[in-house]
Amino acid sequence: MSWNIASFEQELLSFLPPNEPLTQTVINAMRYSLTAGGKRIRPLLTLSFASLCGGSEAAAMPFACAVEMIHTYSLIHDDLPCMDNDDMRRGKPTNHKVFGEAAAVLAGDGLLTLAFETVLSERAVTLNGYEKCVKAGHLLSACAGAQGMIGGQIIDMESEGRTVSAEHLAAMDRKKTGALIKAACLLGCISAGADEPQTQAAARYAECIGLAFQMVDDMLDELSDEATLGKPIGSDKKNQKSTYVTLLGLEECRQRSISLTEEAIESLSVFPQGTETLISLARQLCDRKK
Amino acid sequence: MSWNIASFEQELLSFLPPNEPLTQTVINAMRYSLTAGGKRIRPLLTLSFASLCGGSEAAAMPFACAVEMIHTYSLIHDDLPCMDNDDMRRGKPTNHKVFGEAAAVLAGDGLLTLAFETVLSERAVTLNGYEKCVKAGHLLSACAGAQGMIGGQIIDMESEGRTVSAEHLAAMDRKKTGALIKAACLLGCISAGADEPQTQAAARYAECIGLAFQMVDDMLDELSDEATLGKPIGSDKKNQKSTYVTLLGLEECRQRSISLTEEAIESLSVFPQGTETLISLARQLCDRKK
Repeated sequence: MSWNIASFEQELLSFLPPNEPLTQTVINAMRYSLTAGGKRIRPLLTLSFASLCGGSEAAAMPFACAVEMIHTYSLIHDDLPCMDNDDMRRGKPTNHKVFGEAAAVLAGDGLLTLAFETVLSERAVTLNGYEKCVKAGHLLSACAGAQGMIGGQIIDMESEGRTVSAEHLAAMDRKKTGALIKAACLLGCISAGADEPQTQAAARYAECIGLAFQMVDDMLDELSDEATLGKPIGSDKKNQKSTYVTLLGLEECRQRSISLTEEAIESLSVFPQGTETLISLARQLCDRKK
Repeated sequence: MSWNIASFEQELLSFLPPNEPLTQTVINAMRYSLTAGGKRIRPLLTLSFASLCGGSEAAAMPFACAVEMIHTYSLIHDDLPCMDNDDMRRGKPTNHKVFGEAAAVLAGDGLLTLAFETVLSERAVTLNGYEKCVKAGHLLSACAGAQGMIGGQIIDMESEGRTVSAEHLAAMDRKKTGALIKAACLLGCISAGADEPQTQAAARYAECIGLAFQMVDDMLDELSDEATLGKPIGSDKKNQKSTYVTLLGLEECRQRSISLTEEAIESLSVFPQGTETLISLARQLCDRKK
């Protein structure tokens, strides 16, 4: 498959409403965070699984953009003073530092809403049909909502300042980061009309890389430096958070993230060919330095 | 049609995810605001138009619940310290006063997400089919997003402390309150499979009562007392907001709200019968004391 971050970002922006004089602050704030960099892992997962399951990238594109909008909104709200109170994200000032808190709340709300407008857009319907758009929108809302990502966020918040078990941490991460990564993979399957074994393989792949991703994140918060990471390091320690590193130690953490990555790759064996992108993505996520 | 607020509230809560031990704070916060009273005007509009256009209330119910979820989330976020900073709403402490700011942000996000999960739910699809659910979800997102309600919110925020024209105020209100009222009416039409003249009548009715509603709100902020209204009065003055009252004067405001209400009722003349609920609702909104 062809993957180019710059052209993906153009697609992403094509769903943003045009600037109007009276409402431009919120549109500008939405655009600021949509274009503030990022690895674009989730849309790559959507497009890769669509392609791998015999679908078209064009059809999966609105779904891929919607997942990235949800991810972006969650970062804006997470960074708010009442949440993690972060000033920097990916080497740039966070949304509320640039636009103020009220506009940042609204920009997040706007991106969350736009994600569903995108999944249910005329373009999405023309390429996927009504049934697939309903299934995609429903899956996305279930994974992003109180039983998924938002649920993970509240668990995270309430875990601050106390020691929790590795199982508690895994339950949190399955929701907080895992649910949207899973949605990203399964949206590709929905667009392509994947069969049950393909869908199960995608779900397993998602679960493994999701957990490995979080373990690597925790290791980087401990080991990296601020310039490389683009945000303050040691924030877990500052917020007195239990992490895989504090619970398992660095070496165990590293080994588990490697074996989860191998398990993710193994789950792709149901596909006779075309798995190169997803294999290399799983390895990159495990080996990344930021 | 049959309308009973208590049984509507049961329907509304039936879409809320069950409490899980780790995520109960956010579910409780969502439930708190969903059940914190309110006139339930929007769902009544959805069900009334569905019924008037020959559809079933059962089919329109998920759409009616979704509109109320969006309305509720918007109140939670509007009340936040960084927005209007209101401590009381409908005679009760606002969401962030009870659950804290972070949980209130997440509860709002959760309700916004749940609205789309509800429109695209199995129940909604079984009763309406895929196409109507896509159309309903798309309309709802367009009306609630940056070109609709959220856009109105940012205009409102940026209008504080300066005098604006009546046209500016009307442009703001068409988005801030008008867009969701219109969505409420049109969702009923979508569920019922209304024809074009019926849909246009519903849109016109919505525009008229939306504007009248806002004018009455501004008059009540000037004339009512805190005990009746359930929230502090004079907040527009406190926030130095231009209102229809400050721009047009009380008498002109009263007359315009009455003639808009009559125009709303007139727009229903395309329907040969069954318009009693909507006629009396328009009059009640105009004559209300809170």
